[in-house]
Amino acid sequence: MQFTAQQISDLINGTIEGDAEVAVSEISKIEEAQHGSITFLSNPKYETYLYSSNASIVIVNEDQLVKQPVQSTLIRVKDAYTALSVLLDAYNQLRFDKKGIEEPSYIHPTAKIGKGVYIAAFSYIGPYVKIGDNCKIYPHSYIGDNVTLGDNCTIHAGVKVYYDCVLGDRVIIHSGAIIGSDGFGFAPQADGTYKKINQIGNVVIGNDVEVGANTTIDRATLGSTKIGNGVKLDNLIQLAHNVEVGENTVIAAQTGISGSAKVAENVVLGGQVGVAGHITIARGTQVQAQSGINRSIVEPDKKWAGTPASNYASQMRIQVTLQKLPLLEKRILELENLINKK
Amino acid sequence: MQFTAQQISDLINGTIEGDAEVAVSEISKIEEAQHGSITFLSNPKYETYLYSSNASIVIVNEDQLVKQPVQSTLIRVKDAYTALSVLLDAYNQLRFDKKGIEEPSYIHPTAKIGKGVYIAAFSYIGPYVKIGDNCKIYPHSYIGDNVTLGDNCTIHAGVKVYYDCVLGDRVIIHSGAIIGSDGFGFAPQADGTYKKINQIGNVVIGNDVEVGANTTIDRATLGSTKIGNGVKLDNLIQLAHNVEVGENTVIAAQTGISGSAKVAENVVLGGQVGVAGHITIARGTQVQAQSGINRSIVEPDKKWAGTPASNYASQMRIQVTLQKLPLLEKRILELENLINKK
Amino acid sequence: MQFTAQQISDLINGTIEGDAEVAVSEISKIEEAQHGSITFLSNPKYETYLYSSNASIVIVNEDQLVKQPVQSTLIRVKDAYTALSVLLDAYNQLRFDKKGIEEPSYIHPTAKIGKGVYIAAFSYIGPYVKIGDNCKIYPHSYIGDNVTLGDNCTIHAGVKVYYDCVLGDRVIIHSGAIIGSDGFGFAPQADGTYKKINQIGNVVIGNDVEVGANTTIDRATLGSTKIGNGVKLDNLIQLAHNVEVGENTVIAAQTGISGSAKVAENVVLGGQVGVAGHITIARGTQVQAQSGINRSIVEPDKKWAGTPASNYASQMRIQVTLQKLPLLEKRILELENLINKK
Repeated sequence: MQFTAQQISDLINGTIEGDAEVAVSEISKIEEAQHGSITFLSNPKYETYLYSSNASIVIVNEDQLVKQPVQSTLIRVKDAYTALSVLLDAYNQLRFDKKGIEEPSYIHPTAKIGKGVYIAAFSYIGPYVKIGDNCKIYPHSYIGDNVTLGDNCTIHAGVKVYYDCVLGDRVIIHSGAIIGSDGFGFAPQADGTYKKINQIGNVVIGNDVEVGANTTIDRATLGSTKIGNGVKLDNLIQLAHNVEVGENTVIAAQTGISGSAKVAENVVLGGQVGVAGHITIARGTQVQAQSGINRSIVEPDKKWAGTPASNYASQMRIQVTLQKLPLLEKRILELENLINKK
Repeated sequence: MQFTAQQISDLINGTIEGDAEVAVSEISKIEEAQHGSITFLSNPKYETYLYSSNASIVIVNEDQLVKQPVQSTLIRVKDAYTALSVLLDAYNQLRFDKKGIEEPSYIHPTAKIGKGVYIAAFSYIGPYVKIGDNCKIYPHSYIGDNVTLGDNCTIHAGVKVYYDCVLGDRVIIHSGAIIGSDGFGFAPQADGTYKKINQIGNVVIGNDVEVGANTTIDRATLGSTKIGNGVKLDNLIQLAHNVEVGENTVIAAQTGISGSAKVAENVVLGGQVGVAGHITIARGTQVQAQSGINRSIVEPDKKWAGTPASNYASQMRIQVTLQKLPLLEKRILELENLINKK
Repeated sequence: MQFTAQQISDLINGTIEGDAEVAVSEISKIEEAQHGSITFLSNPKYETYLYSSNASIVIVNEDQLVKQPVQSTLIRVKDAYTALSVLLDAYNQLRFDKKGIEEPSYIHPTAKIGKGVYIAAFSYIGPYVKIGDNCKIYPHSYIGDNVTLGDNCTIHAGVKVYYDCVLGDRVIIHSGAIIGSDGFGFAPQADGTYKKINQIGNVVIGNDVEVGANTTIDRATLGSTKIGNGVKLDNLIQLAHNVEVGENTVIAAQTGISGSAKVAENVVLGGQVGVAGHITIARGTQVQAQSGINRSIVEPDKKWAGTPASNYASQMRIQVTLQKLPLLEKRILELENLINKK
């Protein structure tokens, strides 16, 4: 498929500088772009590529200064990065227009399936499931008994959603993610064994949530594990039973949140962070990768780091001093020798 | 389905205070329970809810004092938390009574299947597999060649069990868990490449074990990776080749245990803990989340924390002092200035 | 199947000491080996087992001294560990000779399938896929649109490969691994929400790569996430979008590498390591388990440890001193008291 600069500019509300009829068929990085491809310049660090690039079209910010001759047609937009995202949306929509029901698939007769859906071969849709309009269910997905999906959801290959869970609209779940597995709850017995506490709650996921590959979200013991609207979860994350994550919170890969912890809205957690059970994290909190949060964070909009986590700035000072620790010990010893001599 | 206070009390060996004929149809948390639901009070912290709750029935400990009027029928039992667990068992048994073989499924003609089993659509049962009585195999499960399952096992959707592995009775494996993948063994070659060491051992799992979602347990190079009776593993845990985990040990999410490490019985490992290869951890050991254990723990029943892990109490002192480290450096400098002046 | 010492010795280019006609039917660890089994001695630590073992055959290094009588037939080879690996290869080849296409499977009519392949029941092979000769595709594998597999690949049960990804020859992917899931890219919007940046790149995997169970490798935003020839990845690893891993690099379980980081060749990363985005790690670097690398490592062939990581030797000194930190504080206080008295 080929598109002209004019067609693309119309799509992203841009202004063209150069040949409006030049056509492209692929999207590339600015440092690798060849003739016939479109690219973008958002980070000023890469400006030199603008002058050396062979790309047929470059999307730039409207205030981008051009200090040397450029070969490419430019499309100026308010924000080049956002415009790229609009462009990719359109590209993906053209590309991934799968529709219909492939065979063999298993759809229980009591399930209600919306309009315009794609249900791939080897999908399993259990009893009383509701699937909204325009959902795409890729192969080997398991939608357990009585699960509800809103409209326009994408369930990638091999996702498993246990019974009773509820997903909003425009939810994207990546391959291997598990929604609604049993929370880790056991009652210790007098003989040293553990008795399983059955987990009969569910997981409720809001609108516009994305869940990364192989991430696990346990169902609540009672009630619901809750993921707010607009939450973005990376890969291999663990959310335990009865966790609540507020709207527009973003969590990077391999982070784990223990049972009943409540993370407020607009929080950013780095990768490999650990959050203890039953604590709360205030809105707008930012936590550095690999930190361990073992008590509640009450004040909003602060940065934290370290294990156990403390204020980011003081943690940075601690880390700098830590590098000098053997030297500090030596200085103490020298002081002791001096004092003892006097 | 509705149940009366009398029916429930009989099930959990309780004593009724109030209307024995009141009926409930759902189980709720005490702070959210409405008319028509049953709840429980175990943690004294939540006692005030007992007086404000709209629940039709509340299960309480037999020694629970009632200091204000309550609307709900009470059922007194020895331990409310355990009684809840019994109740949930009964609820789950009623709910999850799936039986029979759904199509399409793949069952090799040499496989031996017990009585009363559920084998879902898209299950794959390989050659020479033995499945015990009353096992439930959910969709997209893969039971590789020559695998043995005991009785009353639950294999959730999408579990993969590689060839030759052995599971005991009443084992529960959650979605996405991988049992018997190859251990990570490679012989370094003179040219900088690595040659794979084939892993021909297996995984042997005892009775009453639960394995969390997306947890991975590698097969042994030779011999067996061994998971003892009653072990409970949370989600996203890594157990490497030839690891041994003793009876009734509990491991929280995202913890990793390196090759040939031996964890004894009744150990509790927190989340995101790392255990080095070829070491042993004594019975009853407790390890705080995010700790790193890099040498054997010989003395039983002790608490450990930190990376590298040390005695819990001394680790707590270190962490407190660490917060003051930049200040300590300043105090050393002041001492040096004072001494040099004298 | 039984094999004589002579047959095995021929296979591994060994020299026999003892009965060349003794036959074995299984491979065991030296400390557990019984009559009828073959074992090996590579680590001198286990030499005493050589004299007590009931194994029918023991493979030893050619320079192994025999200080006491042995019952077993010995096969001397240049390197016992490598010989074992050759032996296991042969064993595995005999055992895993699956061929042909099982039903039901889904193979799109536009897919091109090589010779001698095994495609298990419930495999999904999408449009325009190319599968090389002698590949083995186990059950519940998803090979997305336009994916290319080289020759002799093994795709274990439940692997998901998203569209457009490219795998080389002799690649082994373990169960639950996800190749080509979307990178974690979102543009923050003025109202606090995030807009998804579609990820239209792919993942390119070289020859002789092994990917562990439930590991996730995200596709590039644009361009390719690149895994070099001979790379070995353990279980539950996260490689983010646009990461590049150089040839013969080895990464242990649960390690995470953030977006656009470049790890050079012959690097060894321990388990649970975190690597920040957009940094580079020099060739031959070794990183201790649980470390956090937050800036580029420029000098090759060095050892690193800690969070933030520093030179291994200095990190070890810091860790030792850290254990004495509360004591150091006390010594500072004593000095202050002494000084103030003078």
